[in-house]
Amino acid sequence: MEHKVERLLVNYKTLEEFKKFKEYGLQELSMLDDLEANIIENDSESPFYGIYFADKLVARMSLYKRNARFDKYFEPKQDFLVLWKLEVLPDFQKKGLGTSLVAFAKAFGLPIKTNPRVQSHEFWKNMGFKPAEYDMERDFGENPLLWHPAGL
Amino acid sequence: MEHKVERLLVNYKTLEEFKKFKEYGLQELSMLDDLEANIIENDSESPFYGIYFADKLVARMSLYKRNARFDKYFEPKQDFLVLWKLEVLPDFQKKGLGTSLVAFAKAFGLPIKTNPRVQSHEFWKNMGFKPAEYDMERDFGENPLLWHPAGL
Repeated sequence: MEHKVERLLVNYKTLEEFKKFKEYGLQELSMLDDLEANIIENDSESPFYGIYFADKLVARMSLYKRNARFDKYFEPKQDFLVLWKLEVLPDFQKKGLGTSLVAFAKAFGLPIKTNPRVQSHEFWKNMGFKPAEYDMERDFGENPLLWHPAGL
Repeated sequence: MEHKVERLLVNYKTLEEFKKFKEYGLQELSMLDDLEANIIENDSESPFYGIYFADKLVARMSLYKRNARFDKYFEPKQDFLVLWKLEVLPDFQKKGLGTSLVAFAKAFGLPIKTNPRVQSHEFWKNMGFKPAEYDMERDFGENPLLWHPAGL
């Protein structure tokens, strides 16, 4: 089944919905601050993409394109996407929503780097992601996983 | 109560004990690979520090000094410590072991940056750590917390 992935707008409704996700943190608090202080406008585009079910946000991820000069993961250095905070609310798991979000990210045709916070190796393996070679000065506590359109 | 904090040596015993910790990941697997391939020697020093109870590792953290040129957190740029994978095994929590590890890290007299993976705001607040101002291109999914010997 195809799920419609939408770019999320920064507004009080979105930020309220974010509170249902486990990985609510400094990023969301900073968006709220910026909205309240009029540093960003209501309904500005956010780095988040999500899937709605009956007007309720049930899955989300953050996605950001980095320039090749910041690439420490791929050879040769190239533009790539950082994907983080991929999360599906518990009642909506096992329906392919996470897969739809990753498929959406892959469709940009760029390599992707993520660092899953939860134990989800099987999911990412099924998505074709592979562990990077661990580099302490780059990774510290991260477990970076990589995907490349042309294969790794 | 004071707990003795020891630098952990890389050997099969240590790496086996690491499996009891939730944040076992690429870093530990890479240490195991390096040991097996003789890239590092048995009993080499590791970036991990820990506390033993009756010969059993019950708490640990990783600690690494970064040069000021990599500093994106403090003003002016300065040498600082990255602290990650602070974790106390469930049966040994609420005994001050986490506090002892953080006190050990602070004793180096350098500012510290950490990115706790679990909800532990109260602990880090009690330790004097404060959230960094969120910067998407630096932090992505991180919630960086900072401590400075001279106060932030």
